Amino acid sequence: MTEPTPAPDEPTNKRRFSRRALFGATGAGVVVAAAGGVTAARLADDDSSTSNVVAFRGTRQAGIVTEAQDRLHFASFDVITDSRDDLIDMLQRWTAAAERMTRGDETVDGGAVDHGEYNPPADTGEALGLDASSLTLTVGFGPGLFGPSASDPDRPDRFGLASRKPDALKDLPAFAKDAIEPSRSYGDICVQACANDPQVAVHAIRNLARMGFGVVSVRWSQLGFGRTSTTTVSQQTPRNMFGFKDGTANIRAEQTDVVNRWVWVDPADNAAPAQWMTGGSYLVARRIRMDIEPWDRANLSEQEAIVGRTKGAGAPLGMTREDDTPDFAVATADGPMIARDAHVRLAHPDNLNGIQILRRGYNFTDGSDGFGHLDAGLFFIAYCRDPDSQFVPMQKQLASKDAMMEYLTHNGSALFACPPGLQPGEWWGQHLFT
Amino acid sequence: MTEPTPAPDEPTNKRRFSRRALFGATGAGVVVAAAGGVTAARLADDDSSTSNVVAFRGTRQAGIVTEAQDRLHFASFDVITDSRDDLIDMLQRWTAAAERMTRGDETVDGGAVDHGEYNPPADTGEALGLDASSLTLTVGFGPGLFGPSASDPDRPDRFGLASRKPDALKDLPAFAKDAIEPSRSYGDICVQACANDPQVAVHAIRNLARMGFGVVSVRWSQLGFGRTSTTTVSQQTPRNMFGFKDGTANIRAEQTDVVNRWVWVDPADNAAPAQWMTGGSYLVARRIRMDIEPWDRANLSEQEAIVGRTKGAGAPLGMTREDDTPDFAVATADGPMIARDAHVRLAHPDNLNGIQILRRGYNFTDGSDGFGHLDAGLFFIAYCRDPDSQFVPMQKQLASKDAMMEYLTHNGSALFACPPGLQPGEWWGQHLFT
Repeated sequence: MTEPTPAPDEPTNKRRFSRRALFGATGAGVVVAAAGGVTAARLADDDSSTSNVVAFRGTRQAGIVTEAQDRLHFASFDVITDSRDDLIDMLQRWTAAAERMTRGDETVDGGAVDHGEYNPPADTGEALGLDASSLTLTVGFGPGLFGPSASDPDRPDRFGLASRKPDALKDLPAFAKDAIEPSRSYGDICVQACANDPQVAVHAIRNLARMGFGVVSVRWSQLGFGRTSTTTVSQQTPRNMFGFKDGTANIRAEQTDVVNRWVWVDPADNAAPAQWMTGGSYLVARRIRMDIEPWDRANLSEQEAIVGRTKGAGAPLGMTREDDTPDFAVATADGPMIARDAHVRLAHPDNLNGIQILRRGYNFTDGSDGFGHLDAGLFFIAYCRDPDSQFVPMQKQLASKDAMMEYLTHNGSALFACPPGLQPGEWWGQHLFT
Repeated sequence: MTEPTPAPDEPTNKRRFSRRALFGATGAGVVVAAAGGVTAARLADDDSSTSNVVAFRGTRQAGIVTEAQDRLHFASFDVITDSRDDLIDMLQRWTAAAERMTRGDETVDGGAVDHGEYNPPADTGEALGLDASSLTLTVGFGPGLFGPSASDPDRPDRFGLASRKPDALKDLPAFAKDAIEPSRSYGDICVQACANDPQVAVHAIRNLARMGFGVVSVRWSQLGFGRTSTTTVSQQTPRNMFGFKDGTANIRAEQTDVVNRWVWVDPADNAAPAQWMTGGSYLVARRIRMDIEPWDRANLSEQEAIVGRTKGAGAPLGMTREDDTPDFAVATADGPMIARDAHVRLAHPDNLNGIQILRRGYNFTDGSDGFGHLDAGLFFIAYCRDPDSQFVPMQKQLASKDAMMEYLTHNGSALFACPPGLQPGEWWGQHLFT
């Protein structure tokens, strides 16, 4: 383990290796004293690193009900070309690179060092030696790609897509207390990169941004360092920056009926021109600054009253276990045990006509705000079948009534239409553009 | 594993547990069906989570030659009080909390949920359930704490420390091409939090910031998602945002003579009033924005010529293995194999009168710059015995001659004096203040 992947059998400085081959040789503690690239690759395929690969193709896009990875890099892009052909070409190149990167490979074979000495490397290289880390790349298309939108009413329909715009894909309405900053909001295309190694997620976004040179430009991006949601029954519930467990009552991948009811777009949902979204999902992104310093000065009972759960176990107030069902009817001398403006009450399906969403958010800290405070919070991501009848009524209720809003500032907002998964040979957006 | 740490034997909503106890019970997959807090804590002590604890006290501060953890949260604080007593009191409280957090515990026993229902919790709670994650907290004191400094010449000597200021502790000089932003630079006190879980590092900084309310204010802070340096012989060399291995020739903890020569302040280095720094080290921090988009357009041979190493193996040009010694004398028809302005040549001890430093930097990506680019780079941290005779001449040479400077912007800069480690009962800064 003292020798970081020498290339002892090669007479030159260069050597062909894949990211996974490299990892296979070193990560497994195997000293490949005289093995060529092929052997190293085979070693890699035999070792456990393959278990860190999430399948790229399938009925659904990965990264939605996939067990939530620990780290996030999310990017929203503006399309800066008017050329439909250039955009399609980029999406095809993106798809090929994304599929490779999710396998733990470079964007193109030998991209970092074997792409020609007098060419810019086709892969930027900072993920060499790292395994796939369960990387998922999830693509979505924003309202502006289809022409005029609420945030940009004068935008032309550059790509002839207006007729294929789903009714559900429109800028979110303004909610009470919104403080939306356009530079942190909107966008024509998004890519959500989730991985258990942040360098793998950053590498993926960076390389896609780079491949999009002249076609797209990064409008905004957000790193998340810790997941706040639980998307499978086997995951522990993590904690958000208020110190509370977050995602206890989230939809789980295993709840097939619930997922089908609330996450995936159904054929009946779309008029014929938007059938390309059947089997997809709508991604809502909200950058929620949490005013952690005032929160930290609130006493425990106030914090728990606002959340409606205990801070330690995460149990609904009046209960002892995290997965106990909240009983909103229990009364105390001072009023309901779970207050009328408690977050858990207002966000609960029983108080939202049964509405559910799939949350997949991440904690963030983006340095300091210049006033002596940490700029920290929750990068909220939710997937839903129809934002208009799921996220919008939920957020309307929370924005106007939730006691927690005193400590929250929503300063980024975006909505994207994420198509279904890809069959062999298909590319991102194929059924939208063709 | 489906049940996130219930507290089945407790009649109330509250339960006393330590972060490590919580982790011990769940992380090891043990279902503690009817165990009280004490039993859970014992389980924790028996399991492997204790191997993720780095000792807080010792001859040296942890976090300097400690095997580099994967994630960073670095904070620089301004002292906003004039009260020496308040400052000392905070440093004592910080020390106690830091020692606890590096063990994987809350800032105070039961701080998140057992500090009294009508008090603000003493711990913010977002690290509950996470183990120690090899957290280290390293403290340093900046020039401004001692009165006037180059960046703030009118500052009074608020704490009567001017006479104890080491000669070595002064703002770094301006280097060629510096673009230093004061809002990302300087500071009176720093804390470097390194951990293998970023949420643990963020939690530590946040809680120290919070405990310092009224005494200190966060001046700037920086997250790093991937280490770029190797501080022990057993660590693989990671890659920086240029895709190259970084830290190959770094000082290693095991090189005791080298460490003693270049990292730790010697009794002979300090005039008597600054003896409090004997056994400590000076921390140089530089926020280096890497212009990754132009870099990514440079061809491979140009990138390798600039670095002076191959991108794949990380070997010095003309060699095949990462740990081969660079031979600066080898010539080609076009000039030296390793160019005169190559980074590896200029930074090599042979070309710097033998100078070495201990690097401990981290990759960062701080969203986007508003011009369609990722704001990415290297948060450079180095430890040295005397910045004036180590970092300063090295950086003078690099800033003026290194071909890589075309792609770098140094926009943050700070220097801190990190005292030696703490003996039992001692607190951060004790030998400076008393």
